[in-house]
Amino acid sequence: MSREDPDVIDSVEKALRLLQSFSGEAPAMSVSEAAAATGLTRATARRLLLTFERLGFAETDGRRFRLTARVLRLGYGYLAALPFWEHAQSHMRALSDEVRESSSLATLDGGEIVYVARVPASRMMTITFNVGSRLPAYPTSMGRVLLAALPAADLESYLDRTELKRLTANTITDRAALEAELARVAEQGYALVDGEREEGVRSAAAPVRNAGGGVIAALNVSANAARVSVEKLRAEFVPRLLETADAITKDIAGLH
Amino acid sequence: MSREDPDVIDSVEKALRLLQSFSGEAPAMSVSEAAAATGLTRATARRLLLTFERLGFAETDGRRFRLTARVLRLGYGYLAALPFWEHAQSHMRALSDEVRESSSLATLDGGEIVYVARVPASRMMTITFNVGSRLPAYPTSMGRVLLAALPAADLESYLDRTELKRLTANTITDRAALEAELARVAEQGYALVDGEREEGVRSAAAPVRNAGGGVIAALNVSANAARVSVEKLRAEFVPRLLETADAITKDIAGLH
Repeated sequence: MSREDPDVIDSVEKALRLLQSFSGEAPAMSVSEAAAATGLTRATARRLLLTFERLGFAETDGRRFRLTARVLRLGYGYLAALPFWEHAQSHMRALSDEVRESSSLATLDGGEIVYVARVPASRMMTITFNVGSRLPAYPTSMGRVLLAALPAADLESYLDRTELKRLTANTITDRAALEAELARVAEQGYALVDGEREEGVRSAAAPVRNAGGGVIAALNVSANAARVSVEKLRAEFVPRLLETADAITKDIAGLH
Repeated sequence: MSREDPDVIDSVEKALRLLQSFSGEAPAMSVSEAAAATGLTRATARRLLLTFERLGFAETDGRRFRLTARVLRLGYGYLAALPFWEHAQSHMRALSDEVRESSSLATLDGGEIVYVARVPASRMMTITFNVGSRLPAYPTSMGRVLLAALPAADLESYLDRTELKRLTANTITDRAALEAELARVAEQGYALVDGEREEGVRSAAAPVRNAGGGVIAALNVSANAARVSVEKLRAEFVPRLLETADAITKDIAGLH
């Protein structure tokens, strides 16, 4: 296609970077704080924040800026375009009701998993991972299901650029060991992770496929290790997880 | 503050407009389709789509572009910054379990309500409204709770610019009648809507407040009219709804 305009690319890239810099830790930022968080100059950060305010995507008390609900419009087109998303939630709720633990659905974005749906367990009062939140792929059950489905060249590229950090005593940090585990995940059709990202959190994940058989998302059940043993996770939860992932896959096929 | 750069504002505004044009009806668009959907020129639409692709926010098969999960990063800062959001979901799940219907939480953006959390009822297999989706405020229970809490001048401005469309036989379309209903909502502390936005859907909503008493969100329970009478909604669901909204409000106060 035709030449690209470097100024447009540059200002759009900076605007999207600035939008991403707001977080639970930084819900409101001054111009200086926004500049520090993004690496933009103060002049650019100010111009962009004022632009966001003018367009209704941010509001300010005169000093700090915070995002408004309007920013949800930016991601909604993606969620609305997922053919499986709405149906999946009913199945996930049924699964969560049955095992009395939370269930999530995620896709891969670069080296991270992104939550696209989540049903919390009733009792859950601790930190929850919500739609749009992200985690590294390698130490999570959903990440392993998604990595195991990558073409070999893409997986190699991921492993080349990813540092396998020891997040807990259990984390697999050896590349060959991770490759072996991913091969096992691909063969058995699910991943089971016992406290590799966070001590005391166990989860199992299974692939959701499109009509062509390609893996488009991972479905998981996550539980506190104090409540659910690895044996219970494998013997009781994994069969229900696999049934649920298959039901979502069948719904997707029915949509085409 | 200092002068604004019209080119930056212009390209950022166009980029955000284009991101918002993707939807469930238009999950993937060619350059021409994107130009038609946004009113941008084909050259501008192409430049922006290629920019999104380069930044990982879109992908293309060579003809059509679709958004990637990365766009969820743009709205996540807003959701993560809501102090009540994570706690609210546990209360909503308990409410939904008890009344066996779905529960949602929404805020106001312009003349629309925006869903920021939702717990679907187990049986729900029909259309669901999910995080980021939007509805007009005037014919919905959550919208009425939020409108009833607006300063008088803001409410007047809303009513001046909003056409009250007859969406069903029940919709209040008379301005004075709507103002009277909003006054009633403010006085009784909840809104009850019987099929004004969609035939056969009944809902009740109550305000969630910040530590200063300001209304920051509306919580609802929504049910199929075939299952739940207006009497049942008012006598059984509304008391539980009010308790749940109060519990979320108390949690928020505890966070400060």
